[in-house]
Formats: sequence, C-alpha cells, structure tokens
Amino acid sequence: MMKTFIFSFLLLVSLTTFSQTSDEAMIKQIFDQALSKGKSYEMLYDLSVNVGPRLSGSPGAAAGVEWSRNEMKQLGFDSVWLQPVMVPHWVRGEKEIGRIISKRAGTVTANVCALGGSIGTGSSGISASVIEVKNFDELKALGTKGVQGKIIFFNRAMDPTKINTFGGYGGAVDQRANGASEAAKLGAIAVLVRSMGSNLEDYPHTGGMRYAPNVPKIPALAISTRHAELLSQHLKDEKDLTFYMENHSETLEDAPSFNVIGEIKGSEFPNEIIVVGGHLDSWDLGQGAHDDGAGCVQSIEVLRLFKQLGYQPKRTIRAVMFMNEENGLRGGIKYAEEAERKKEKHIAAIESDRGGFVPRGFTVPTEAKAKERVRSWKPLLDPYGLSDFSQEGGGADIGPLAPQGVALIGFLPDSQRYFDYHHTGEDTIDKVNKRELELGSASMAALVYLIDKYGLK
Amino acid sequence: MMKTFIFSFLLLVSLTTFSQTSDEAMIKQIFDQALSKGKSYEMLYDLSVNVGPRLSGSPGAAAGVEWSRNEMKQLGFDSVWLQPVMVPHWVRGEKEIGRIISKRAGTVTANVCALGGSIGTGSSGISASVIEVKNFDELKALGTKGVQGKIIFFNRAMDPTKINTFGGYGGAVDQRANGASEAAKLGAIAVLVRSMGSNLEDYPHTGGMRYAPNVPKIPALAISTRHAELLSQHLKDEKDLTFYMENHSETLEDAPSFNVIGEIKGSEFPNEIIVVGGHLDSWDLGQGAHDDGAGCVQSIEVLRLFKQLGYQPKRTIRAVMFMNEENGLRGGIKYAEEAERKKEKHIAAIESDRGGFVPRGFTVPTEAKAKERVRSWKPLLDPYGLSDFSQEGGGADIGPLAPQGVALIGFLPDSQRYFDYHHTGEDTIDKVNKRELELGSASMAALVYLIDKYGLK
Repeated sequence: MMKTFIFSFLLLVSLTTFSQTSDEAMIKQIFDQALSKGKSYEMLYDLSVNVGPRLSGSPGAAAGVEWSRNEMKQLGFDSVWLQPVMVPHWVRGEKEIGRIISKRAGTVTANVCALGGSIGTGSSGISASVIEVKNFDELKALGTKGVQGKIIFFNRAMDPTKINTFGGYGGAVDQRANGASEAAKLGAIAVLVRSMGSNLEDYPHTGGMRYAPNVPKIPALAISTRHAELLSQHLKDEKDLTFYMENHSETLEDAPSFNVIGEIKGSEFPNEIIVVGGHLDSWDLGQGAHDDGAGCVQSIEVLRLFKQLGYQPKRTIRAVMFMNEENGLRGGIKYAEEAERKKEKHIAAIESDRGGFVPRGFTVPTEAKAKERVRSWKPLLDPYGLSDFSQEGGGADIGPLAPQGVALIGFLPDSQRYFDYHHTGEDTIDKVNKRELELGSASMAALVYLIDKYGLK
Repeated sequence: MMKTFIFSFLLLVSLTTFSQTSDEAMIKQIFDQALSKGKSYEMLYDLSVNVGPRLSGSPGAAAGVEWSRNEMKQLGFDSVWLQPVMVPHWVRGEKEIGRIISKRAGTVTANVCALGGSIGTGSSGISASVIEVKNFDELKALGTKGVQGKIIFFNRAMDPTKINTFGGYGGAVDQRANGASEAAKLGAIAVLVRSMGSNLEDYPHTGGMRYAPNVPKIPALAISTRHAELLSQHLKDEKDLTFYMENHSETLEDAPSFNVIGEIKGSEFPNEIIVVGGHLDSWDLGQGAHDDGAGCVQSIEVLRLFKQLGYQPKRTIRAVMFMNEENGLRGGIKYAEEAERKKEKHIAAIESDRGGFVPRGFTVPTEAKAKERVRSWKPLLDPYGLSDFSQEGGGADIGPLAPQGVALIGFLPDSQRYFDYHHTGEDTIDKVNKRELELGSASMAALVYLIDKYGLK
C-alpha cells in the first residue's frame, strides 16, 4: 500500500507538469529525426574544415559569421540577422619557441604556445632560470628575492580524482588566468603554465589570461603537460637550469564583429523568447570543433528539427551564435544589453559549450519554481541518457542575461574527453562522434520543446 | 510533511542496505586510486600493442594467456591458474577480395572481410549476380527461383534511432549470424552482409556466423557500410551487376587453450566467490582493445585496487579472463562446468564486455531480492555517473553460470561509440580514453566491494 501511495503521489505531481503520452511521442520524434536525418554533423564538418578556427577579430571569425548567417538563411528561419559588437583583437604571431637548456642534458625543445592576451617576448626572446611553484601561496612565500628576474613555472596539475573534469579545470585555471600578474608583482619576467589537460600529452593548451591593472605585463606561455613533467624532473636535478622562450603575440585595436541570430517566431506568445546558443569564436589552434562549433550547430539544429517536424512553437525560439566568449565575452554582454534596451522578454536561455559529447543532463535554473519544473521533466528525458539535473547555472555567454530574470540552463554532455582537446590544435572534427553530437542536438530540442509548451512559471 | 514522510521512508530502506558514510569513503578511495594511480590503461596498452589480436586457437591468444597469467602473478594475487579448454580454430587466410563489376561503371574494389566461421571460396573465387534483400522475409519471398546461383546481399542497417546502440545491433545481427544458411536453403552460392556499424565507414566488421545443420555451407563476407550503400546504389541502376569475392578461410581442428583465473581469498567466507571478468579472445582484425581487452584489464584492476588500498575482502574475489567468447563461448561454458563439478558457491558474476567507455550503470540480476539490493546502492554509485540500473541480465561468458543461481551483472558503459570499432581493424588502443577506462575499473571495484560487504541475499 505504501508503494501505491507513493506512486499515486508521484503520478499526481507529474501530471501537473507534462502530458506523458504526447510529450513522449514528440520527444521520440525529435530524437528519431536527429539520429536518422540530422544535419548536426554535416554542419559541424563544414564549419570546422571549411571555415576553421575563428578567433575574435580574425578573418576566420568573419567567415564564421557569414557561414552562420548563410546556413540559417538557407534553412528558412523566419528572421536571421547580425548584431554588431566590438571585440578584442589578439594575434598570436609566429610560432612560439620553448627550450629547456640544461648543462647536463643539453637543449630540449619544449612544446609551448602563448596564452591568449599575452604580450610578446620580442624577437630576442627571454632566457632566465626557472622557479617551479604549485600555487600562489608558494609563489608569495618566495618573495621578491626568490622571484626577481626569473621565469615562474606554474605546475599544478588538474586534479584527476574530480569525476567531472570541469572540477579539475576549475581547480587549476587560476594559474593560467592570473599567474602572470601574480608573478610580475614579485618581479618575474615571464611565466610558463602547465597546460590545462586531463592527461600527459605532447601539445600545449592555450586559453585566456588577463593582466591586473598597474602591474607590469610579462609574457605568459603554456607548456604541454608532458614537457611540464619533464621540466619539473630536470629542475629536481639542476636548479640553475635556463629556459628560453620566444613569442610574438600582440593585442591590436578592437575590431568590429557580430553575434549571429536566427529565429522562428512564436505562434501564441511571440514576445516570449527562448534562446538556444553556443559561441562562434574559438581559439586559433585547431578548428574549434568541440569548443564551440558543436554548440553552434546544435543550436541551429534545434530550430531546423522543429521546422523539419512541422512543429510550430508557441513562443519565439532563437538560435544565437555568440561572438568572443573565449577572450572577452563581448558578444554575450552585448546580447543582454540589447535585450534590455529593446525590453525583450526572455523566458529561458540554454547554452551548449561543453563539447559535442554524449548527453548526461542539464544544469537547472537557480529560481526555485523553474528549477523544479525542469527537474520534473526528468522522466521524459532520462530514456535518452539525460539523468543529471543536479547542478545550477547556465553558460558564460548567457550569464549576462541573469539580471533580467532569465532562467539559465546549460547542456551537460559527458566531460571525460573535453580537456583532451580543449584550446589545442587537437580540437578538430575527427574528435567528434556523429551520434554523440546528434544526441546533444536532440536533447536541447527536447528541452526547448518542453519549455515552449509549458513555460517555466 | 508528505516530503518528510517519503524521505524518512526512503532513508529507512537505504539504511538496511548500506552504511552511508564508510561506504561513500571507501568508494571515493577506489575512484581516487583508479584515476590517480590506476594501471588499467598501462595494462591495456601492453595487451593491445605487445600481444595484439587474440583469436581463439591463434598464437596471439596463447600469448594473451601468458600475458594474463604473468600480469596477475606479478601483482601478487593469492592464486593464479589456467583452466584448460578446447576451442574452435578458424583461420582467415589471405586477405579477402571484393569487386563490384559493373558494365556501366567498370570495376570497383569493395572493402570486405570473411565472417568468422565462413568457409572459403577457393582460389578461383566466386562471381555471380547479386540480389539485395533487407530481411529473411524478403529472401523467402524470392523463392528458389530468385535465389538459385546468386550472391545474396543482406543490407538492413542498424536502426540509428535506437538510443542504446546494442538495440540497433540486436535488430540487424541475424543477417550476419544466420544469413548464409537462410540463403543457402534457397540455393544461393554466397552471401554478402552489410557490416554491423553505427555509421558510414570504409572498413568491414567481422563477427561470428554459424551454419545450420544439413544445409550447404556457402561463403559469407561482410562489406563496409559505405560500400554496402554503393553496391545498393549500383543495383538500382543495373540489376545484372556481377560481384566477385574471394576468401581463403577455413576451420581447423579444435585447439587447446585456457581460461586464466586469478583470485584473492576471502577472509570470512572464502567459499563464497564473486567473479569479475571479461573475455581474453578477440577477433583477428585490430587489437581487441575495446572488445574485450578493456574488460580483462578492468577485471585485473579490481583485484589490484583492493590490494593497493589494503582492502581485504570477506569473500573470495576472482578475476576471470574467459577464452573464446567470440566464436564458441567454450571458456564460459567450461568455467561453469568446473564450478559445478567442484561444487563452488558463486554468489555473483560481473562481466565487462561492452568496451572501455565512460560508465553509465550496471545491468541487474533477475532474482528479485538481488536486483533490489543492487538498485538500492544507486545513491552511492550515481555520483560517479552510474545511474542506469534498468536492464536485467549479465554477459555472454557468465551466462552459463545462471542455472547455478548466480546473480549475473553486466557493466554498462556508454554505447554510442562501440559499434564504430566493434570487430574491425579500428579496435585499437588509440580509440580508448584513459579516464573512461579507469572509471570503468573503479565502477566495477565499487560494486564488488558492496557485494562483498553486504552480499545479495
């Protein structure tokens, strides 16, 4: 009897938030269509291979804007437009050089790359002895005396015991983001940062860094995890080892660029907008396939699937390709500003920016009612591998919409392989599995369908 | 109040089956150890690259037996031994040839391989016209008149809309397993079978086929999915197309081989045995990395992790590397026979034979109490991505233990990429992600720990 009682109770709760049969059928149609006649992979192949890397301000980014606009126009969305935004324009310059110069072992080439935003070393490069630290406390303990004139080598690995690799990333990325200025405050002349990678690999991971105000700017390079281990090993034997680094990066004037937006107008509540998005810019290494070409094509695919299935949404559904997530977030900020200026009513925004991997779930809005509503749909989504609704919050680009009371949701694919490719030359289309990508598109479409039908209040 | 009531009820249920704090801590230790100091990947690299493919009866299989025995001996398990078993001995022979011979388009090479168990065509090969069918009903409808003297081309794809790819596989594999004899009953002289792959690919998938008694044996080859599409397209234009096939496979005398077994003796109930296993044999193409080198090293790793953590199990834990899952199941049958003959008491057997991908859950035993017990542990396992406990049953090799009342459990990794590599030359170590493999080992160790501690009755 207890069982019956609980069952009835749960049933009652369920009935208030979705209609089992018709929603099940519609969601199955979405997945069937995405898996048997989906265009996600074809679009991502095209964006990755024929457009390629899309760093803000680069010709690749401009080509990405054109690609997105054309793609959505050809798909016949109700409106497609560009939203102008000025973006930072950092250029890497010639390929970087890194050398471990050991008196005992000779010179070893180290795989390095400049961090995004770094200044250059100048053409004569920088040679100095290297001091390894694991964190800012160790750095500060060295004091000016220990740091002055040195290259500081930040070598704290991502914690492999974090099941969600974003946990490992979050625990290490301060070295990349703030390491240069922290070291410069004590007189360092450059920094080397262990790459944010899950494994021992031969290629470096780039990524954003920022200089603190009123602190001397010094060059900041990432070193591959394998060469970080090697350098650390050398330093154990030979404290006065020299490292040579050379990079030619510079920050140019801000450049004009765009968010690219496509929408299908709602039939009943056209003024209520649901955004589904990813960021169009990428780092300059690789092809930006997982980060975040995947999120862009998945967002376009949500609208395409609706059209293909003849589903007319009640609310307006917008696919937004945000510009400049990687090194400025200008696109996300601009989008939110414009939404506020035009008094647009966004009811939800869903971002896909964790790679085109197999779906695991969604992060949920922070507001209690919306959160419960999304979680109440778990029985409909669980058959598709969407079982994790435990975390709150959305994605970087949609974050600026928070003050407008928009429910922010993040698509959560499996995280295990993301930091094998993240911000590297390895982030290419061959690392994307077609079915995994398609399942992600369908997952987002299913959630948008439910939000469109039932709202979040 | 209702919530409190349900919560108390669930808590009460929970308390009967596990001790939250100590079990949480132990399971965390298992995962931490596997992810930070695990040996799964190192072992699988060695088995895949230095031993290589391990088809039953081959020198590779014999090397795999030696490798497993040495590995477990070096790890210092309490006992390591070989269990003799006679196995089928099929050999592929020289590389197969497939040609689409079109009057209009000329000759096109088709990527083919013999199915395991197939006879050869003889050195002059077979040339005949091709009849495409999607299933056995279509075949029967053609009758002897339509089939006599032809090559029958089974071209039903795996259903891409099945979320679990094993569903798509299960819905197509009858063509591979029984197609030859079904076609031979109506006078066909050979069969071509569309590969069991999730995508359009250039390489064929081998796999077991069997001849029905008292039906003529005819050669059976797999054709890559892309060439299956191509052949089908050609046939639309040109009904009297010729296909040429040549293979040199044959079945030799049964050969001696072994299951390889290692165990840690239980401290309290040494006569109660928990098996954790995979199959050591593989197909001859590729390296048998996912299928099923992964299951073998994960099974060894379970015992190694216990030793490493100083965990002394109450029950006896056995890692079993079964021989001949792919084309005979002789090892699984022999293991069950010996268990019965020696009156061994197996309380559970867990098999990993779905690749070294990221964990999703476990299949559960069919017996009600054991099933509920396993499901009651979900709160402990869910933080590690183990959320699917919906299916019943174990794996092929442990299946023969069922009549002895053994609780059978299958490790369930994510299925999306499995049929990209399954039974192909692509099943190599570079397709295995280190963290995903390690998470699988830890998942199995966590479940064995819980079964060891609490039993299943």
